[in-house]
Amino acid sequence: MMDTEQATLKTQTESEVQDLYDAVVIGAGSGGLTVAVGLSTLGKSVALIEANDIGGDCTNVGCIPSKSLLHHSAKHLETGSSSREVLSTVRDKRNQLRDTEQHEFGEMDGIDLIFGRAKLSSATTVEITANNDSQLTKTISASNIIIATGARPRPIPIDGLPAERYVTNETFFEQTELPKNLAILGGGPIGLEMAVASRALGTSVTVLEAASDLLPMLPDKAGVAVRNSLEAQGITIRTGVTAKRYDDASRTLYVGPIDGQESGSVQDVDAVLVAVGRIPNSAGLGLETAGVETERGFITTDRKGRTNVSSVWAIGDVTPRSQTTHGANAWGRRVIKAIAFPYMPTSSDPIVPSAIFTRPEVATIGEHPEEITDDINRLTLDLSTIDRAYTDEVAHGVLIVDVRRLSGKVLAVTIVGPRAGELIGVASLAMTNDIPLHKWYPVVWAYPTYSGAFGKIVDMHMSETLTNLKRESRRWVGGVTRRWRS
Amino acid sequence: MMDTEQATLKTQTESEVQDLYDAVVIGAGSGGLTVAVGLSTLGKSVALIEANDIGGDCTNVGCIPSKSLLHHSAKHLETGSSSREVLSTVRDKRNQLRDTEQHEFGEMDGIDLIFGRAKLSSATTVEITANNDSQLTKTISASNIIIATGARPRPIPIDGLPAERYVTNETFFEQTELPKNLAILGGGPIGLEMAVASRALGTSVTVLEAASDLLPMLPDKAGVAVRNSLEAQGITIRTGVTAKRYDDASRTLYVGPIDGQESGSVQDVDAVLVAVGRIPNSAGLGLETAGVETERGFITTDRKGRTNVSSVWAIGDVTPRSQTTHGANAWGRRVIKAIAFPYMPTSSDPIVPSAIFTRPEVATIGEHPEEITDDINRLTLDLSTIDRAYTDEVAHGVLIVDVRRLSGKVLAVTIVGPRAGELIGVASLAMTNDIPLHKWYPVVWAYPTYSGAFGKIVDMHMSETLTNLKRESRRWVGGVTRRWRS
Repeated sequence: MMDTEQATLKTQTESEVQDLYDAVVIGAGSGGLTVAVGLSTLGKSVALIEANDIGGDCTNVGCIPSKSLLHHSAKHLETGSSSREVLSTVRDKRNQLRDTEQHEFGEMDGIDLIFGRAKLSSATTVEITANNDSQLTKTISASNIIIATGARPRPIPIDGLPAERYVTNETFFEQTELPKNLAILGGGPIGLEMAVASRALGTSVTVLEAASDLLPMLPDKAGVAVRNSLEAQGITIRTGVTAKRYDDASRTLYVGPIDGQESGSVQDVDAVLVAVGRIPNSAGLGLETAGVETERGFITTDRKGRTNVSSVWAIGDVTPRSQTTHGANAWGRRVIKAIAFPYMPTSSDPIVPSAIFTRPEVATIGEHPEEITDDINRLTLDLSTIDRAYTDEVAHGVLIVDVRRLSGKVLAVTIVGPRAGELIGVASLAMTNDIPLHKWYPVVWAYPTYSGAFGKIVDMHMSETLTNLKRESRRWVGGVTRRWRS
Repeated sequence: MMDTEQATLKTQTESEVQDLYDAVVIGAGSGGLTVAVGLSTLGKSVALIEANDIGGDCTNVGCIPSKSLLHHSAKHLETGSSSREVLSTVRDKRNQLRDTEQHEFGEMDGIDLIFGRAKLSSATTVEITANNDSQLTKTISASNIIIATGARPRPIPIDGLPAERYVTNETFFEQTELPKNLAILGGGPIGLEMAVASRALGTSVTVLEAASDLLPMLPDKAGVAVRNSLEAQGITIRTGVTAKRYDDASRTLYVGPIDGQESGSVQDVDAVLVAVGRIPNSAGLGLETAGVETERGFITTDRKGRTNVSSVWAIGDVTPRSQTTHGANAWGRRVIKAIAFPYMPTSSDPIVPSAIFTRPEVATIGEHPEEITDDINRLTLDLSTIDRAYTDEVAHGVLIVDVRRLSGKVLAVTIVGPRAGELIGVASLAMTNDIPLHKWYPVVWAYPTYSGAFGKIVDMHMSETLTNLKRESRRWVGGVTRRWRS
């Protein structure tokens, strides 16, 4: 994806590259850009090194093209555009944003944007090799090195599947048109979003999820609501299976349990989108040379974002701490603070929501306890019962709030429903500021909105707590005792 | 709108009507229902009297049919349904909900639902006259009388306009089909929502707003963003004028400034939707007999919702305190608390958001100061600049936050943009819990969402405050001094 303009920029910048920076940021995805801009705004000299396209996964093969495709796939019913036209529009929009970003960050005072591959030659030096000319190598030093190289799709070999039928999010948006029949490996954010967009554009879609339920990390009812919504759109969902092999002649994908034999097949599969997780881009960075520790490929960091080597930091998908753009940015902000204001205390860990922009959206924050003990109240509201869902003809959705009894501390919130990605912001603000659920009681929610569902959840909590104060206290004491013991 | 089923219910219930209740609630709109259900849940005996349809304006001629029409008007581009079909669907959905509510509340233990007209004969007695039979009259007593009779469209005489061309929200949804050309008097919630829905269904729409700008109570940029959005949908907006007279032969509506001469006209007007405010339903209730004070027709209440007569309470549109369903409910909850737990302290006044469910939505909470003094920071973000607006092709929108300098107290928030009605919930929770803007800083917003705009506003606030601490302090001192002096 390296083009001439970038190569030119590299050469132009080359002469300006200094020998010593306050910070070298490796990777110009959203996390790296956040750190580079933040530090340079605070007066630090910054070199920002990017091996491919500015904007990273988010701009190029992630958030931006996927949300754009989702938007156009919804509009397609009005416009009647073909998937060929829609994909072309999505690429145009993506390229336009990338150009804007490149222009904006390439010209930014205090940041030297360098296109090339970076490798640590020590804890404070980085060797840069130009992509287009392996001869062009320069070594720069920095007081701080921030690694923000992201991750890439985990490859899954599928016997018999020709390369041109094997698609990931890195190639999905480059397709000229969508396949007529698409199998999707993995029911995570990428898999589900592309399922919805592709289906809306006329593709037959089968999602294969290896776990026994969709979204197994969420409470049961969330997975059920998502499954019902997606099936209502004509998407086939098969859980407990993964791809075993492909027969090109009959275009058949044979499937089976992850640890078992072939148990079935999907017919007429034109392409397989593989979206079964991501692996960190930590190889080839010279981490061993610099002494930076990793765990299963991920660069481990402390609560400030610092690695075991004090001059080296890491944020975003290359760490185990976050797998989202906003997570990378949140950790980027912590690194900025730690570098620029080293004597300020470290604030508590950010509480990072996550969202899937399917129709309906899915969003979650906090950690749902695996077991609902006596001291926890799980409040569940069928979102289809609220008035706005009635006027909007929304048949499936759920709001789940796990709260500590009596204290009202909000532990986790999951929403499946329209605008869930926005609604989770309410929970994010409340949980970050430690506002217990009873303090949500006097909040007035505009009617008729989906946010009004929070009001109903709070009413449930209040009436349960007030009418069962004795039982609640007993349960709470029981819970506390158990936590002490364990 | 009184039908046989209701008349029957009235007669059936008659024999069961007691002589003395803990509370008589007059009006079974959403506010009245909230109070009736709340009090009966707490063990109080309740009579609920309704002169027309259960659910009041919200269910019958307000929130429910308007949101349903907006939904179907958006879908119409896919389905190709005519306005005749859509209006019929909207009425069906509305009637179905009304039937459900009537069934639910008519059967509720502890509530006697009585259809008829109520009139106070003293501070603790109510005379009920059946709608269908003026002979059937009964007087009941109650320790508390709660008036929740709502409001109705303010009538505006338009010379020459035949009655069948004069439409309000009470008759709008009863139309067989939408007019080809619709003039709308008033650019408030009803006017703008019906403008968007009608336009999407193919009607030519002209909105006439007497004020010089749309939504004059909001900061300028909000009105501009709404105007731009609506005009992009093909809606004509004319400000500073109102209807003067109508010529039926040429179907011309002549318009001019509210205090001036005719200055122009709208051609080919088939119907005029009059939505220029609402007047309280306080006449004929026997308020004078009971000694209940009103002001310009509104029943005035204290911070508990109590009128000047200690046994009489009032909530909702009949009071000057709220003009929304959620506002009526919020005040209804206060009345429940005051009646059921009279010795509990009165909590601070609810901070009530308001929302217009146009496309895009408009939502606001708090009071924007008319003048931005030195101690106030007005933060404004063009919503079309955020990434989700880019992928969703949203061209117009704005987020405006007024915040007290240094303290960071949030004074008011206005949003014009997709999902604004949900996003205002974030501000509602934060303002009700008095969370200053700097405590929004560590909040992580899912990317790419519209709620992420809050993050950008907070960044603007933080960087202004931190980089200009000296100037900020000076301004803040200036502001405090001025507030002391004034």
